[in-house]
Amino acid sequence: MYGIFSTPDTSAHAGYKIDNQILDLVVAHNLDVFHGIDLPRTIFERDTLNDFIALGKPVWTAIEARLTEVKTGQLSEFNAPVFREMLFVPLAEATLHLPVAIGDYTDFYAGIHHAENVGRIFRPSGEPLLPNYRHLPVGYHGRASSVVVSGTSVHRPNGQFLDNDKPTFGPTQALDYELELGLIIGRENPLGQPVSVADAEDHIFGVVLVNDWSARDVQRWEYQPLGPFLGKNFATSTSAWVLPFSALASFRVAGPAQEPAPLPYLQDPQNSRFSLTLQVLLNDTVIGTSSDEYLYWSFAQLIAHHTVGGCNLRVGDLLATGTISGPTPGTFGSLLETTRNGTQPITLPDGTTRSFLRDGDRVTLRAWASTKDDRIELGEITGEIQPGF
Amino acid sequence: MYGIFSTPDTSAHAGYKIDNQILDLVVAHNLDVFHGIDLPRTIFERDTLNDFIALGKPVWTAIEARLTEVKTGQLSEFNAPVFREMLFVPLAEATLHLPVAIGDYTDFYAGIHHAENVGRIFRPSGEPLLPNYRHLPVGYHGRASSVVVSGTSVHRPNGQFLDNDKPTFGPTQALDYELELGLIIGRENPLGQPVSVADAEDHIFGVVLVNDWSARDVQRWEYQPLGPFLGKNFATSTSAWVLPFSALASFRVAGPAQEPAPLPYLQDPQNSRFSLTLQVLLNDTVIGTSSDEYLYWSFAQLIAHHTVGGCNLRVGDLLATGTISGPTPGTFGSLLETTRNGTQPITLPDGTTRSFLRDGDRVTLRAWASTKDDRIELGEITGEIQPGF
Repeated sequence: MYGIFSTPDTSAHAGYKIDNQILDLVVAHNLDVFHGIDLPRTIFERDTLNDFIALGKPVWTAIEARLTEVKTGQLSEFNAPVFREMLFVPLAEATLHLPVAIGDYTDFYAGIHHAENVGRIFRPSGEPLLPNYRHLPVGYHGRASSVVVSGTSVHRPNGQFLDNDKPTFGPTQALDYELELGLIIGRENPLGQPVSVADAEDHIFGVVLVNDWSARDVQRWEYQPLGPFLGKNFATSTSAWVLPFSALASFRVAGPAQEPAPLPYLQDPQNSRFSLTLQVLLNDTVIGTSSDEYLYWSFAQLIAHHTVGGCNLRVGDLLATGTISGPTPGTFGSLLETTRNGTQPITLPDGTTRSFLRDGDRVTLRAWASTKDDRIELGEITGEIQPGF
Repeated sequence: MYGIFSTPDTSAHAGYKIDNQILDLVVAHNLDVFHGIDLPRTIFERDTLNDFIALGKPVWTAIEARLTEVKTGQLSEFNAPVFREMLFVPLAEATLHLPVAIGDYTDFYAGIHHAENVGRIFRPSGEPLLPNYRHLPVGYHGRASSVVVSGTSVHRPNGQFLDNDKPTFGPTQALDYELELGLIIGRENPLGQPVSVADAEDHIFGVVLVNDWSARDVQRWEYQPLGPFLGKNFATSTSAWVLPFSALASFRVAGPAQEPAPLPYLQDPQNSRFSLTLQVLLNDTVIGTSSDEYLYWSFAQLIAHHTVGGCNLRVGDLLATGTISGPTPGTFGSLLETTRNGTQPITLPDGTTRSFLRDGDRVTLRAWASTKDDRIELGEITGEIQPGF
């Protein structure tokens, strides 16, 4: 997986995580590990992956193949301990940085059980899904400036919310996480040039985990009629490592039936999901286990819809799926669902209860793809809640 | 006013518009017009103003003062025709570019009459304003990638909307403009460090006009529950020239009474508006004349609210006000209001009618500030509607 790291001796630059080590891509490039691949000399010395990603899919593919050779020892000239010592940095010695400069961050609402669960909580007498849900991938624009890398603490935000129906200002009383996947865009489309479902996957560089931290009380009071704003924009965390999209190829599974059939521009004959298991841990206790297969819309459909009116996506843009929950307790991707909006607190092994997050809580998201023959881990996200400021 | 321009002989770089001429800031810097001001050598050679803006308010102030001397002929060593010939480029010879790289684009809903007008159209039996409106500046995150400079044509976007209650895909049938002002952020606040109302104006570099083009049918179908998405993100236009915020100082007027009193973090003893007249022209016919004084919230309140949960604003970010309309016909900032959602078309001088925009229509926004002693123009925005793609 690709990321950006620094050490006490080096400034932020690109690396490739292999187990508990980082292959230093600057060193590898200087040692000519990538001979034969047309790469700018300083491409890995930059503090984001954007310029590398912008080189395009043939380059990613060639680099991946070469790195697989290093990983498996096939590139025998680099097997000598002296080379491996130069090439690898122990993960524990590295500081990890946000891997890409995110131009725009979009968040969808593609987890259908999440949408239903939330609908039941907030509109108990109505249909759980709004009429548009099965016709288009509902989404909104999030805040790019406050996307932070795994490990960054999150301060409990102040905000305005209703307390006994009275607008009040103070630290949120309903701080929550959201378990999501995110796509890192690898190929831009110019303004006015939509990306078809058929071409959409070629625009994905890689996949990250996303925790879209939410202040539910703030969100509830502010969101009509224009959607979430301060309830979300205080922080969004991503994993430090970007899994190349190609690495998911062998974990492709069929997606759910889509009824009614989407309009032609959204029809996706492949309609793939990936056998990705997603988990959320609160202070090391697993409190939710979910799956990519709970997404109603495919990645290709998200991209095709986003661009169909001509909106341009740029290299490094982040498209998150929205919270991914299953239909039953234990499969939920937010405390809003897990505790039924705080009305059914959960009890942790230490005997304490949670309606929403407390200061000092540590939330970890992790994910892995597996089949009976193969397994791959995504980068995890951790974030600890600090008091307000 | 500051902008970025190119000519057949020069690539995009910074200029300062004075009437129908552009003072070339690269040439001025090379001629040492800014002697005594600490400026990086290539600061005006870049294709956005961001690095210049990031130098901070003392630098903007010094440059403004020096440019005023040039403008008024006080800097006598530059009055010779040979220098003026070198310094100035006729506006007609320049191509104008987006003046700043916009990290994030936020759009508010601060025009209270607009909010009321829209409420009456969409919720005729309810209160025109939602309960939160007078308690906080409602806003949402827009799309930064598709912000374009004045003069850029806008293609009629395709999208999904209801036609006789049936989801349908095609070119929007309800293309609209929105008359707005925008703030260009000049000073960042780090994540987790709110900006108070008292400090907020120090974070404004300048002011632009904004046309937040909207596809009303797409917006209406998609926007529940997360707000506008494809109905807005196909294009947003800004003026090419950024008016320094300091230039508005002499046009400051008192804002409207705010009842109920905002919560303490939003209280603004100054509560300024500016005597700015805003106009929208459709094919050269004035169809709406509005005013900055119709904004319910002050610029300082918008910034304080945006950051109160810790959200970081960056240099170059765009904060738009939302549509600025008055309460009566002739003062509306959108066709949605002017034609009552298309039910009362307007007739143009050529005898044609409009419910919403037609292909070939040209929308111009313009604005000026005036008192009995002084007048200043903002940059205008033009945009012509092209057929879909």
